[in-house]
Amino acid sequence: MSILVVGSVFFDSIETPHGKVERALGGAATYFSVAASFFAPVKMVATVGEDFPRSEMDFLAQRGIDLSGLQVRSGRTGFWAGRYHEDMNQRDTLDLQLNVFADFRPELPASHRGAQYVFLANIDPRLQSLVLDQLAAPGVVGCDTMNHWITGSRADLERLLSRVGILVINDEEARLLSGERNVVRAARRLLAMGPHRVLIKRGEYGVIQFSAHSVFAVPAFPLEEVFDPTGAGDTFAGGFMGELARSGDSGETGLRRAIVYGSVMASFVVEDFGMNRLRTLTPEAIEHRYRQFVSLTDIDGA
Amino acid sequence: MSILVVGSVFFDSIETPHGKVERALGGAATYFSVAASFFAPVKMVATVGEDFPRSEMDFLAQRGIDLSGLQVRSGRTGFWAGRYHEDMNQRDTLDLQLNVFADFRPELPASHRGAQYVFLANIDPRLQSLVLDQLAAPGVVGCDTMNHWITGSRADLERLLSRVGILVINDEEARLLSGERNVVRAARRLLAMGPHRVLIKRGEYGVIQFSAHSVFAVPAFPLEEVFDPTGAGDTFAGGFMGELARSGDSGETGLRRAIVYGSVMASFVVEDFGMNRLRTLTPEAIEHRYRQFVSLTDIDGA
Repeated sequence: MSILVVGSVFFDSIETPHGKVERALGGAATYFSVAASFFAPVKMVATVGEDFPRSEMDFLAQRGIDLSGLQVRSGRTGFWAGRYHEDMNQRDTLDLQLNVFADFRPELPASHRGAQYVFLANIDPRLQSLVLDQLAAPGVVGCDTMNHWITGSRADLERLLSRVGILVINDEEARLLSGERNVVRAARRLLAMGPHRVLIKRGEYGVIQFSAHSVFAVPAFPLEEVFDPTGAGDTFAGGFMGELARSGDSGETGLRRAIVYGSVMASFVVEDFGMNRLRTLTPEAIEHRYRQFVSLTDIDGA
Repeated sequence: MSILVVGSVFFDSIETPHGKVERALGGAATYFSVAASFFAPVKMVATVGEDFPRSEMDFLAQRGIDLSGLQVRSGRTGFWAGRYHEDMNQRDTLDLQLNVFADFRPELPASHRGAQYVFLANIDPRLQSLVLDQLAAPGVVGCDTMNHWITGSRADLERLLSRVGILVINDEEARLLSGERNVVRAARRLLAMGPHRVLIKRGEYGVIQFSAHSVFAVPAFPLEEVFDPTGAGDTFAGGFMGELARSGDSGETGLRRAIVYGSVMASFVVEDFGMNRLRTLTPEAIEHRYRQFVSLTDIDGA
């Protein structure tokens, strides 16, 4: 089954304690799509400017990503520049130019409206709802959001959450959205808003998933060096939704395996700047690290 | 097999956002001993003052803890008072009176010198070494330490570490002792100091164990309410060493299961003030939560 993702495509200039990169391909929809493309066909709905290079268009197309919903508009592609601290959980935004993304309005081609696996990456919750309005009968709908919408567009966000099955969010956002510091209480409040699954990303500490009746926690893969954390959350979501679509199993076991595949993909993307690591990644490397994850977490393992 | 532990017995006055308690039984050796006593016989070497109540002595004895190495000396038992912040990872010490603990010098009765399972709780590393000097041929030696000794007695601590098999410390201490922020690099440096296993406690995020050839990570049990984190690390160590002694398996599988039992015990102790929860805990409740841990972490679980 193919996956529909709606979100941003940006260029990112990134500085970390390990070096820097200028105008690297980025944006939530991009990280998501490239990660998911290792598991299932992806249809990407986003917008870029006329400056978007042919070579990157080719890269995405070669990964099997359907770009028929990508709006190429007059103007420039969105741009973000940021600098990570020595503690890479903290970063400063140095520059932000929304450009064509400023008035992005997702429009789904007819071929996209029957999508069964849908991910609403972090954009204005009104636009996320607008995507759902255009879908016939989506099966699995995941979404992300961020502090900006939680504080500034809470009513829109709550309307959206009542229509979403799986909320994928980081721990800080979970606290802000729920008003609860404790992760269990936060998750319970978020489940009450609509989603039947809440996945809370905890950075270097992994991911914890809650439903009304189950909890699953997986650590992050322990890496000796994190070069660049940009896009790790979106890459996680891509691997997660990708594996759900590949397996067709969105029961407890399918979700757990999908969370591990998401964690595998996130562990790769941070090994190099931007999405460089994903450009050379192989299915064999993904399966190898999946097995390492099993060994990392298996209580009875040796 | 029985376990020997050497460390502190204190009274603690504790204030958390959930309430407070005055002069509760505490100290690293106490938390360790009570937790370990659910798994194997424990011999405790420590010191208390004449003010130590008969009722607490009886409680420890009833848990099967051998108190023949407990020095009751003229003076008062050590006392600590602390207040936790809203974020309970942070606390302030309000009062500290070492009392008889100030010149504690561990002396092992002859009956203790053949101990196979030994835990050196957090005390001056010279005293920890002094304990090892008195042992015939210990099989499994674990130790803890703290920032105070890492910065103030590094040479003594490094001498100790060259004689210890399993180092159990928290993430902040691991960073300080290794000089590395990254947990993988920190663990590698610590392994190079002598221990063949390093267990790094990460509070609400669980525990990660490193050896030269393996990594194992387990999340903390997700609790809706942490009433009082005091003693959680020592209780973890007690459950961990206790299970090692009970199973007799200190291979990879035995260590992993012991880490989960340690995590189980820590998850109980924080549910109430001081060690109150351990006073009413049953083996059945421990086994039940162990199974919940397996389900929490099992990738293929349902």
